Amino acid sequence: MNTLGNKLKVTVFGQSHAPAIGCVVDGLPAGFAPDMERLSAFMARRAPGQNAWSTNRKENDIPEILSGLVEGRTCGAPVAAVIRNSDQHSRDYSGLQRTPRPSHADYTAVIKYGGNYDIRGGGQFSGRLTAPLCFAGALALQLLEQRGITVAAHIAQIEGVFDSAPDFASIARTELEALLKKPFPVFSDDAGMRMRQAIEAARLDADSVGGVIRCFALGLPAGIGEPMFGGVENRLAAALFGIPAVRGVSFGTGFAAAGMRGSEHNDPFVMDGDRVSARTNHAGGVLGGITSGLPLVVNIAVKPTASIAKEQETVDLEKKESIRLVIHGRHDPCIVPRAVPVAEAVTALTVLDMLLE
Amino acid sequence: MNTLGNKLKVTVFGQSHAPAIGCVVDGLPAGFAPDMERLSAFMARRAPGQNAWSTNRKENDIPEILSGLVEGRTCGAPVAAVIRNSDQHSRDYSGLQRTPRPSHADYTAVIKYGGNYDIRGGGQFSGRLTAPLCFAGALALQLLEQRGITVAAHIAQIEGVFDSAPDFASIARTELEALLKKPFPVFSDDAGMRMRQAIEAARLDADSVGGVIRCFALGLPAGIGEPMFGGVENRLAAALFGIPAVRGVSFGTGFAAAGMRGSEHNDPFVMDGDRVSARTNHAGGVLGGITSGLPLVVNIAVKPTASIAKEQETVDLEKKESIRLVIHGRHDPCIVPRAVPVAEAVTALTVLDMLLE
Amino acid sequence: MNTLGNKLKVTVFGQSHAPAIGCVVDGLPAGFAPDMERLSAFMARRAPGQNAWSTNRKENDIPEILSGLVEGRTCGAPVAAVIRNSDQHSRDYSGLQRTPRPSHADYTAVIKYGGNYDIRGGGQFSGRLTAPLCFAGALALQLLEQRGITVAAHIAQIEGVFDSAPDFASIARTELEALLKKPFPVFSDDAGMRMRQAIEAARLDADSVGGVIRCFALGLPAGIGEPMFGGVENRLAAALFGIPAVRGVSFGTGFAAAGMRGSEHNDPFVMDGDRVSARTNHAGGVLGGITSGLPLVVNIAVKPTASIAKEQETVDLEKKESIRLVIHGRHDPCIVPRAVPVAEAVTALTVLDMLLE
Amino acid sequence: MNTLGNKLKVTVFGQSHAPAIGCVVDGLPAGFAPDMERLSAFMARRAPGQNAWSTNRKENDIPEILSGLVEGRTCGAPVAAVIRNSDQHSRDYSGLQRTPRPSHADYTAVIKYGGNYDIRGGGQFSGRLTAPLCFAGALALQLLEQRGITVAAHIAQIEGVFDSAPDFASIARTELEALLKKPFPVFSDDAGMRMRQAIEAARLDADSVGGVIRCFALGLPAGIGEPMFGGVENRLAAALFGIPAVRGVSFGTGFAAAGMRGSEHNDPFVMDGDRVSARTNHAGGVLGGITSGLPLVVNIAVKPTASIAKEQETVDLEKKESIRLVIHGRHDPCIVPRAVPVAEAVTALTVLDMLLE
Repeated sequence: MNTLGNKLKVTVFGQSHAPAIGCVVDGLPAGFAPDMERLSAFMARRAPGQNAWSTNRKENDIPEILSGLVEGRTCGAPVAAVIRNSDQHSRDYSGLQRTPRPSHADYTAVIKYGGNYDIRGGGQFSGRLTAPLCFAGALALQLLEQRGITVAAHIAQIEGVFDSAPDFASIARTELEALLKKPFPVFSDDAGMRMRQAIEAARLDADSVGGVIRCFALGLPAGIGEPMFGGVENRLAAALFGIPAVRGVSFGTGFAAAGMRGSEHNDPFVMDGDRVSARTNHAGGVLGGITSGLPLVVNIAVKPTASIAKEQETVDLEKKESIRLVIHGRHDPCIVPRAVPVAEAVTALTVLDMLLE
Repeated sequence: MNTLGNKLKVTVFGQSHAPAIGCVVDGLPAGFAPDMERLSAFMARRAPGQNAWSTNRKENDIPEILSGLVEGRTCGAPVAAVIRNSDQHSRDYSGLQRTPRPSHADYTAVIKYGGNYDIRGGGQFSGRLTAPLCFAGALALQLLEQRGITVAAHIAQIEGVFDSAPDFASIARTELEALLKKPFPVFSDDAGMRMRQAIEAARLDADSVGGVIRCFALGLPAGIGEPMFGGVENRLAAALFGIPAVRGVSFGTGFAAAGMRGSEHNDPFVMDGDRVSARTNHAGGVLGGITSGLPLVVNIAVKPTASIAKEQETVDLEKKESIRLVIHGRHDPCIVPRAVPVAEAVTALTVLDMLLE
Repeated sequence: MNTLGNKLKVTVFGQSHAPAIGCVVDGLPAGFAPDMERLSAFMARRAPGQNAWSTNRKENDIPEILSGLVEGRTCGAPVAAVIRNSDQHSRDYSGLQRTPRPSHADYTAVIKYGGNYDIRGGGQFSGRLTAPLCFAGALALQLLEQRGITVAAHIAQIEGVFDSAPDFASIARTELEALLKKPFPVFSDDAGMRMRQAIEAARLDADSVGGVIRCFALGLPAGIGEPMFGGVENRLAAALFGIPAVRGVSFGTGFAAAGMRGSEHNDPFVMDGDRVSARTNHAGGVLGGITSGLPLVVNIAVKPTASIAKEQETVDLEKKESIRLVIHGRHDPCIVPRAVPVAEAVTALTVLDMLLE
Repeated sequence: MNTLGNKLKVTVFGQSHAPAIGCVVDGLPAGFAPDMERLSAFMARRAPGQNAWSTNRKENDIPEILSGLVEGRTCGAPVAAVIRNSDQHSRDYSGLQRTPRPSHADYTAVIKYGGNYDIRGGGQFSGRLTAPLCFAGALALQLLEQRGITVAAHIAQIEGVFDSAPDFASIARTELEALLKKPFPVFSDDAGMRMRQAIEAARLDADSVGGVIRCFALGLPAGIGEPMFGGVENRLAAALFGIPAVRGVSFGTGFAAAGMRGSEHNDPFVMDGDRVSARTNHAGGVLGGITSGLPLVVNIAVKPTASIAKEQETVDLEKKESIRLVIHGRHDPCIVPRAVPVAEAVTALTVLDMLLE
């Protein structure tokens, strides 16, 4: 349900308008001293209110760590962190239980939980719940870094605009590190500019746009993962679909592989000095569920933000009749940029979990 | 690892050239009398050797049921089934441990399991292991049918050829039932013909092609699934990536949602008599991880068969040098048609598991 | 690790001297309005400082609920609760990492977590972590009560003093309710008096005593539980050994069954009106891992408090030599009375989890 | 349900009178060459028909290995083994669904599974299902031996007769090895003789007796196990209650700890050369759920065989009235001696699972 992982378990709690959100991270190695400044910087990448493309909601997302650290080091006990909710405009959501917002979880949550479902701000389905995921992910990212593993993502697509794609077989760590420093992480700054224009155009149009995030993990040893249902793909997909608005997960060349021939898609093995490598990496670093030592490449499709300012059609669940709905409040015209660190966080947590197993 | 499900657990075992393959299905409701004829017919859809597009390997896949049935009815004990391996050409595979086949699990398996890995026929990574999955899935499909749920898939794409797509919001049960009767399940017979031509062209070219399978589940009640990591998407993706050669999983409009605007992608709720429905179903029947009562739509990208007759490049792991490799033996030029019942089986098992929880 | 349950998951966090302890309870049915007054009363039964037999540590254990409730009712989101730690005397524990206290987890924790282990007050192994378990258990107890199920425990033994045992086959709900109202829950008040004398004698002797808790669950439907590894015994034992100081778990007649003959131990079925019952209940309400509808009876052996004021022998892990150790601080001469509500809580959580599955 | 373990998973299937019983062992390290002769010898210790105290049912329990081995070595794929059922007297059990045998799972199974439950020979609840557990356990025992770990059990009690107890802190490997060679494993041969007399007396009396098995694991490293719900006790208890007829599980001094004072029960740490040891081992080798490096000691209470030849009282579930029942067929007057290798098997599987994690 709200718990991710086997050996490294993250349990997320909270609702958008509850007193707090937070998480419990169980299974971190003892003796790890997280760099809190970098943790905050990572979480800030997800935080809203800082850019043209994100909601104005002001979050003061300072996590309070309640347990698991002694003098700044993990002690073996679970690390619990709490983020208080402060800037809540609950009145914006009144009546929504009767008139579910299209493509939100309102309707299915009311079916599942009945009238007690917390619809304010999307309740437990709110994108705000990704803040504790980023807290946990930031810890995982630092631990991976200590093991020589870098996780970073770029915005591969926004609406009709595509970023340039790196060579999956030979992407360099420096390329990923450059990505991590950009407020809008793309390889092609020109594509990035056009993406931001597409977002702005949607916003001005009281609309929203979707996109694709592509996440890399560099430095993973070969041999991680299990066959069949325990593979890297199974585990990563199960985790990444936990991010709100994710509609698809694919690896390497992904759905484009469907249009290819074997002679084109197969990755010929080659020697890279003493190391086995491959000429191409359509596989995205995973064969038979097990890492090959090549860069891990996972693509994540994100739908356009469901909350748009345009008038929409829905039903009144009590009167059982159609009505017109206008959603008020503050909403991102595109969730993709803020979802980038979330994708990195979830990838890092899953990869670290598999490494610790 | 080799076990799928929570309440309904399927454990798969075997290797391509072991004495047998099989599965244990634990958690089936007691008192269920499987229709063995229909079970055989379902398994035959996956079996090779029957069509132009599949390998000539002759499988006599008659599962022997070892436990779990009393006078043809489930008794509460796990149902164990064994399929003997008979038609094995082990000599075709000698030496492959040193020269891993591109885009197969040979290399990663050797890294993980060392020299003891059973490389004959792909060992435990062989597509043959999907036969017991189909056995288990056939049971699940019959149980779902008793609950008014139909699961069926079509071949949505082969290489560059696309099948017509039905209306995700209003696809009829009769359309799915028609699909289930076709040896090559497509909505457009014309597209199907061109798909088969593409497969045949690849075969003549000593090559292979990939494709996309789209699976539907009709009749699912609203309210199934859990938020965050327990959603229908998480569970289905984790299961479907267990099918060999799957490279991507998406729901409803999937990756195409990335190119859309919210006003276009959002599914307006409408009343369908007394029932809440939606004008479109880009969501594929799942909102916030929970079923909406609309048809479940999941897309599965399948890579081109890795085993091709064309000469390929790989490395000799002992000599650490490049070599040319020609793969002998019998291989499907396209795995997609035979993967269709496997996708239905895995979808059915996952959906039934979530219903039983 | 620190998570209990399948469908109803409780994740516990904190250390004795961390800023806080707490828990996340995931999977509670939506729409449940916990009675907070009764919840507090239940938690007070575990709290220290109120009786002659417990430590003087003053805990102000008011849990703050951070999420999961809307207007006092569960909304489907996890319920997270935090209890601040205030009354900490950390100086009492300095140096203990080098000189592990006999029969505490100090030594094994240092082996497992290294020098980063939080030894203050027993860290994450502290009995204080049972406070959030009681919070979660109190919710479960109220939900069970709504289903007509009563869980209550008595102190069956303290050192050499034994309480009278009720008839396991016919114990009445009123007997259990009477138990729940007693500050020192025994059936025989005379035995209770002698037990308290034994505790007091141990305290005056700078020593401690152990005991046995026997917990009942009345009103459970027949048919709950799974065979083999999913039985009620398996699940309850796995949970109850999570309570610090528990050394044994048995059901019904328990270890005494080893000394009996079948003709004596077998429980003859009898009709109780229209209901199937049994003349005796040596089985403790479970046959083959599945509830029989008779009262569930589980016995829990609790060792004497490891912290005693008497001088003890231990080793200096650095110098690798024997030393004499005197443990300062406040400690219960007998943990059993305060462990009674914890046993009830863990039993209730496990039983409710199995009912929800 | 019928699956044990996390990293090393054993799935058991079959019923007493199904075509076969068996198991799937997933997660064994690759490259392990099991000694099949020793495996058979181990399984023979559990097999019936060989001693005065066991049923005459003749089992020819030769497991057929269907997968997971290549040239006698594990290859990473699950090891599946099947044991055919041959010597079945199904007619002995007719009508038992209406007249549940006291202290058997008949009644609870009928409640859970309805009329489809396989009552022949106890169905899936039959002690016969421990044969595949012994198969899996024999593999685990050999793997543990390679790691310097010895697991062996003695019969600590039969009815009123007690074996002598070794010193838990200093029991020697040679003592355990001697135990493993005895057909009736006790430390005191005199006690063993009186135990056998007690069993024979019960048999002549058309009755049965229970007992206690005490299992040791020697050579376990310190630091294995997790706190709270992931402890060695939790894991072992959850596993051991999967053995039919087990009514209690305790560690070290177990329930007797309840009668002791802290000064008596606490185990003073001492140096044993450079190694930390303890003067006594009342804890049974586990502190806070984590191994201390001292011998692991677990006690298992086994009830008297429920099937006795004496006439008993039960009910007719259809007529809802009391009746007299005489159970025919062949039954052990005491299950304890044959349960000894089962206890060793389950202990070994659990300990190896925790080591592999």
